[in-house]
Amino acid sequence: MSIHKVLIAGSWRESDSTGTFQAADPRTGQNLPDEYPVSSWSECEQALDAAAEAFEQLRQMPAERIAEFLELYADRIEARSAEICEMASRETALPVEPRLASGELPRTTGQLRQAAAAARSFSWCQPTIDTSANIRSCFAALGPVAVLGPNNFPLAFGSISGGDFAAAVAAGNPVIAKAHPLHPGTTRLLAEEAQAAVEQTGLPKATVQLLYHIDHSDGERMVRDPRLAAVAYTGSRTAGLKLKAAADSVGKPIYLEMSSVNPIVLLPGALQERAEEIAGELAGSCLMGTGQFCTNPGLVIAVDNDQTRQFSQTLVDKFQAAPVGTLLSGAGQQGLSSAVDALRQAGAEAICGASEGGGQGYSYANTILQCDGDQFLANPEALQAEAFGNSTMIVTVNSIDQAVEVISQLEGNLTGCIYSATDGSDDAAYDQIAPHLRQRVGRLLNDQVPTGVAVCPAMNHGGPFPATGHPGFTAVGIPASLIRFAMLQCYDNVRPHRLPALLQDENPGGVWRSIDGQWTQADAGALASA
Amino acid sequence: MSIHKVLIAGSWRESDSTGTFQAADPRTGQNLPDEYPVSSWSECEQALDAAAEAFEQLRQMPAERIAEFLELYADRIEARSAEICEMASRETALPVEPRLASGELPRTTGQLRQAAAAARSFSWCQPTIDTSANIRSCFAALGPVAVLGPNNFPLAFGSISGGDFAAAVAAGNPVIAKAHPLHPGTTRLLAEEAQAAVEQTGLPKATVQLLYHIDHSDGERMVRDPRLAAVAYTGSRTAGLKLKAAADSVGKPIYLEMSSVNPIVLLPGALQERAEEIAGELAGSCLMGTGQFCTNPGLVIAVDNDQTRQFSQTLVDKFQAAPVGTLLSGAGQQGLSSAVDALRQAGAEAICGASEGGGQGYSYANTILQCDGDQFLANPEALQAEAFGNSTMIVTVNSIDQAVEVISQLEGNLTGCIYSATDGSDDAAYDQIAPHLRQRVGRLLNDQVPTGVAVCPAMNHGGPFPATGHPGFTAVGIPASLIRFAMLQCYDNVRPHRLPALLQDENPGGVWRSIDGQWTQADAGALASA
Repeated sequence: MSIHKVLIAGSWRESDSTGTFQAADPRTGQNLPDEYPVSSWSECEQALDAAAEAFEQLRQMPAERIAEFLELYADRIEARSAEICEMASRETALPVEPRLASGELPRTTGQLRQAAAAARSFSWCQPTIDTSANIRSCFAALGPVAVLGPNNFPLAFGSISGGDFAAAVAAGNPVIAKAHPLHPGTTRLLAEEAQAAVEQTGLPKATVQLLYHIDHSDGERMVRDPRLAAVAYTGSRTAGLKLKAAADSVGKPIYLEMSSVNPIVLLPGALQERAEEIAGELAGSCLMGTGQFCTNPGLVIAVDNDQTRQFSQTLVDKFQAAPVGTLLSGAGQQGLSSAVDALRQAGAEAICGASEGGGQGYSYANTILQCDGDQFLANPEALQAEAFGNSTMIVTVNSIDQAVEVISQLEGNLTGCIYSATDGSDDAAYDQIAPHLRQRVGRLLNDQVPTGVAVCPAMNHGGPFPATGHPGFTAVGIPASLIRFAMLQCYDNVRPHRLPALLQDENPGGVWRSIDGQWTQADAGALASA
Repeated sequence: MSIHKVLIAGSWRESDSTGTFQAADPRTGQNLPDEYPVSSWSECEQALDAAAEAFEQLRQMPAERIAEFLELYADRIEARSAEICEMASRETALPVEPRLASGELPRTTGQLRQAAAAARSFSWCQPTIDTSANIRSCFAALGPVAVLGPNNFPLAFGSISGGDFAAAVAAGNPVIAKAHPLHPGTTRLLAEEAQAAVEQTGLPKATVQLLYHIDHSDGERMVRDPRLAAVAYTGSRTAGLKLKAAADSVGKPIYLEMSSVNPIVLLPGALQERAEEIAGELAGSCLMGTGQFCTNPGLVIAVDNDQTRQFSQTLVDKFQAAPVGTLLSGAGQQGLSSAVDALRQAGAEAICGASEGGGQGYSYANTILQCDGDQFLANPEALQAEAFGNSTMIVTVNSIDQAVEVISQLEGNLTGCIYSATDGSDDAAYDQIAPHLRQRVGRLLNDQVPTGVAVCPAMNHGGPFPATGHPGFTAVGIPASLIRFAMLQCYDNVRPHRLPALLQDENPGGVWRSIDGQWTQADAGALASA
């Protein structure tokens, strides 16, 4: 069978490939029939050239056109939903229902439509006007963005359909998508719809391009290439740090989401009050999607006492009673196995699971590890390593003080959660712990598992390094996520007719702007004379 | 005479120094009498420990206290203005009047007071509330910040008094200031006032610390140290890139302002209309402060014609008629001399100046270089190298098309300016050039020199690499500059009484917040029920 074509400069082309690859069905381990190309560097260059040209054209277009594209693309994804979800399920073993068709796909189209609304409202631009100095600024498009999506969300974080894609395009940037090699077919179907929507709305033909795979060295070379303005990456820390080093070497913005164990602190009063309920929530969160979520709870901290021992047993029961899910890939199975082994070698004890297999295809037993606070503090680096998948670890501490010590050893994480009693009996412990956890996570939760990541303006799906590359940005949540792919552009004494519309005195669209320190939807003149 | 003491953990201590240094009087080249220590690594560690402790305390304090500190510090600087300006003038050769006493010092105290207002109003926090999801976020303090200030603004960009200092402290972070070795005495006087204000307002004693000098290797080590949360640096590109590499290696935010030639395009109609006036403005901007401004115009692009030739001659006349200023240091004189030599070797012709001396003490003749567009395009990297000081270069292009080609070869810059005719005759050329210049600079000006950098909310003193390290941030302009020293903190389902005040439903202080996509000063409940 023929090799699939790449999408470059608006057309599906035979790839100038250096090799090919196939995705596998994780349920069987068998390769799927379709063959996909590994693009050569010269093909990367074609995409870079086309993206640079598209950016020049895109800058001249009204934001409305970009919004129309995003909405039409969302419509087209929905129209082809069954085929897309079927393909994604075959490539990832994630179930069509409810996960893909009722969860991830609506999230994906919802994100695209929110991004369209942000493009239309200019809410992400933060227009700022100083009337007396006649200095005006706003965020504006940055240039071509490469998006490298992860293995675990083929749609909602997919390189040509997910949050990074939506944010980069909504901010006015062309995207070069690199498919994740575990789901090239899904990415292809999405790219077909994206390209059709590009044509239908008359956007520059290279607004959206797709390469299925490139060599690691070409990936780093692309990241360094001056035709590329920024990079978004979600995936393993090892690969992420290499791309970060490449981007850093040329001073290029790169936004990474790399790893997170998402610590959960269970305060004594909470366990006394509702241990069974918490164990249920936690087991669900830990095993959802076979644990392959960025915000999967990988570290549970509780004070060592009778309640905690009973809670651990309840959690073990739930883990053992739950079906063992299929992992995304053989590499995923191997990675989880190695990670669990490493945690055990570092002193953690397996209280359930910790063996390969047990489910359909690529799989690993639902696993709980345990260590005490002293052990953790003796080897904090090894004992907080992420084991990506259906595994978690309980750290039993001898006091709230020791919980604080453990938390103080944590690297940056996406989320952190504290479960506390409703009757106030945990309040002192909460106040002792929260400031330390707060500074180490992007999103702090109370009494709620972190695996739901709502797409809303106040969401922060980010956090201190090494969870991400910068603690000030979020990958989820609109309009904030768009600012990653923007530059701050200031206009000083620029003649009125040369200003972008959203910085002119008149504001017919009612854009929210900060004028002389006040947020307003009024004209600049109106406020100045008021 | 004894060695000056360092300020660590709230007290002036004998330094555990590895050596000493003295500043020089640039007007004579003679060393000034005072001896200052080069701190050892163990002293750096003391400062880091104290800063980490101070941060924990600072987080518990109301923002009002920080605002009071910034205001009191400004008052104290004003009360000691004569002595500070006298010392700064001795160490930098910048005149007391008008530059220091009437320019830089009021700018410095004005910045501190603006930063106080931002701390008090929480305007920099961008509080965002989604009422239906009960998710709330805001920017919050990040941790101890090291500030390394430049040689050219001892007060307004000084490590213990300037914009970075004010922004870092106003955002709730302790600062470890490293004095610039050209003006340790000025920094000492300022630090004395800062420390007195810290004591008087009851801030943690290590909120402000001062080291005079450290070895480069200790500087990089400090940047990598986990006790430090972020770094602000203004200075040479060589040193900046080393610090950037150190920070990048550990995923730490670093904000750099490194170099900029601040291109100015003179369109033909503008020269036809007002060449003499423009030459006057440009000469003033190029020679102000002996050209030692970050936004000094180092590259002037004009179409080769009779008017441009005449303009060049006028500019030469003005450069030759102007007094030759004193440079900040012998290293500065040597750097300027080497940079001009390198530009000449790359093909530029000196049409005036280009020789050492000519002024009092460290000095270099007011210099204009010239090359044509073909030359520039043959060697764009060498011909856009910054020559820091009273030197500029004219690039004569054969057409507007070639001007675009030249601009397309420019690295990132802080500013770019286009002078155009008032009668509209340059409008087509403007429209051709502006999009290319826009993308390469942080601040775009019309018909105005870039050397004035107003401290106002819409200012962007930033720009694409290598002018800075990230195109989304500004070093000047409040509240935006504070966000550099902050992390995005999200609260998901956190119980109301545990939320920071500015994220609770009630908003007694009338903080501007974005609630469900609308900016408002009202309570969250009020809007939700409206």
